[in-house]
Amino acid sequence: MAVYTDITEAELDPLLKAFGLGAALTFKGIAEGVENSNFFLETPAGRFILTVYERRVRESELPYFIELMQWLAAHGFPCPTPQADAEGRTLQRLRDKPAALVTFLTGVSVRSPATAHCREAGMGLARLHLAGAGFPGYRENTLGQPVWAGMFEGQAGSADALQPGLAAQIATDLAALAETWPQGLPQGVIHADLFPDNVFFVADKFAAAIDFYFACHDALAYDVAVCLNSWAFDQAHRFLPDHAAALIAGYQSIRPLSGPERSSLAILCRGAAMRFFLTRLIDWTSTPEGAVVKPKDPLEYAAKLAFFRAPDAKARLEDLFP
Amino acid sequence: MAVYTDITEAELDPLLKAFGLGAALTFKGIAEGVENSNFFLETPAGRFILTVYERRVRESELPYFIELMQWLAAHGFPCPTPQADAEGRTLQRLRDKPAALVTFLTGVSVRSPATAHCREAGMGLARLHLAGAGFPGYRENTLGQPVWAGMFEGQAGSADALQPGLAAQIATDLAALAETWPQGLPQGVIHADLFPDNVFFVADKFAAAIDFYFACHDALAYDVAVCLNSWAFDQAHRFLPDHAAALIAGYQSIRPLSGPERSSLAILCRGAAMRFFLTRLIDWTSTPEGAVVKPKDPLEYAAKLAFFRAPDAKARLEDLFP
Repeated sequence: MAVYTDITEAELDPLLKAFGLGAALTFKGIAEGVENSNFFLETPAGRFILTVYERRVRESELPYFIELMQWLAAHGFPCPTPQADAEGRTLQRLRDKPAALVTFLTGVSVRSPATAHCREAGMGLARLHLAGAGFPGYRENTLGQPVWAGMFEGQAGSADALQPGLAAQIATDLAALAETWPQGLPQGVIHADLFPDNVFFVADKFAAAIDFYFACHDALAYDVAVCLNSWAFDQAHRFLPDHAAALIAGYQSIRPLSGPERSSLAILCRGAAMRFFLTRLIDWTSTPEGAVVKPKDPLEYAAKLAFFRAPDAKARLEDLFP
Repeated sequence: MAVYTDITEAELDPLLKAFGLGAALTFKGIAEGVENSNFFLETPAGRFILTVYERRVRESELPYFIELMQWLAAHGFPCPTPQADAEGRTLQRLRDKPAALVTFLTGVSVRSPATAHCREAGMGLARLHLAGAGFPGYRENTLGQPVWAGMFEGQAGSADALQPGLAAQIATDLAALAETWPQGLPQGVIHADLFPDNVFFVADKFAAAIDFYFACHDALAYDVAVCLNSWAFDQAHRFLPDHAAALIAGYQSIRPLSGPERSSLAILCRGAAMRFFLTRLIDWTSTPEGAVVKPKDPLEYAAKLAFFRAPDAKARLEDLFP
């Protein structure tokens, strides 16, 4: 959580003019998002977030994300809505970096979700899936199952350094995922990163989702699996069945899961745990000591992988359905 | 600019209850202030800044700062106004650190002030001095002239490492300041740190001052000298006479400087340059490499010291008056 790019009035004033916003009433860097710099901007025209895209987000992919947010907002889903300037452009440049102005959204994220939040998050995810139907853009899941084995290449030593024997377990998981990864499940736009910090609540009700920069086209139920990983474990990485059941119930109240989606949930969860384990492992080993942003602990997801790897995982997930 | 303390709903919810604010609509860490963590909080009751006091601010001094902001606000000066909880307490504790809830202020600071901003800042400073009259609290200027020589002890090597020969010049300055420091000038509450990042403008008009954590009792004209140092030099540390004249004119439009204040301005400016040189030098030498907050360059203030040390400094400042 940091602000990497310093925006002065020399950068801001032309932007205010281009968007016809009037004078800035407030302009503050906010500690939100790990990948980009975000600024809270208020003018007589309203409240906005100015995002300056830093490392990681590929510029060529930005139009997909911008158009997706516009589509979702136009289809009733509460998400940041990119604004167009007087010439119709949504993508701007600030300090030689891409930037976008989006609507400011009311709501607060929760650090320790209660079951009621999980239910709301499940409902929000299902609303997102329905709102995304028909979106003409397409982005492959660049962190999907086909690339996991490649991501682990050269990382066995790091994995064993974190936890002796972990590399062998990961290799087994990767083989099992490659062999049993479900095909033919309902596909569509998925958020792919709907962790609690990307969901806003107002008075404990789902209010909005943010941070669509991993969004892509993949199995909708995989998005449910990502949420089960991030909403249904406690700080000690213990599975919380009530949270998981609430998330699934909320989701199904809007979009019921099909039989194949339901029976694939355990392997999808194992895959989602693998995806976050792998990116965290790579961040962990590639982040220099003393860096501003401390990398997240890969062992959190090693623990979740172990949970979903266990022989009883499928039965435990089945138990969550009414 | 960073957020050092992580506030979760477990800390925030009791605070919302104690202040009777209702549910949080927005809660975001903001990149404002170097010394403390600040959060933008909006509820149905209004907009606030929650400040968590980190290193440097002495807890025993917080009541002075809180009472001063309350006094200034009650006397018509736009500054953060500390809020009291249902039991009348302004000082709170969060994560075992002192904290306070203050009003959110509209406005933006400017990185490169124009002369019009300098005039407005001068007016704002004079308004602050008038509003502070009669404030019953008292805090000595713990970074005032009497302590400068002691602050430089043991730092000669660091000064010469930055710029060969600098230590000898500083020693000369310290002796001159001790010998000629003006006595008997009008005293009162001073901000003591009214740099451009601590002044908010709306449509280029003075809107508010923030960050009162160096405020103290000292010569009012010393505050003008601090502002001349921070508003009337360009990025290359060259003196900007138009900026300085505008700042003085703005100040005098509200509170005319007395003859002794005016004739002391050069030595006060030299002293103010020394104060910021010394704290920056100490920060520079004591900050570990790779720290999150990069220390500010002491040589900026060495250059300003050189300007105010020059034989023509007094005449150049005299020229600024109509």
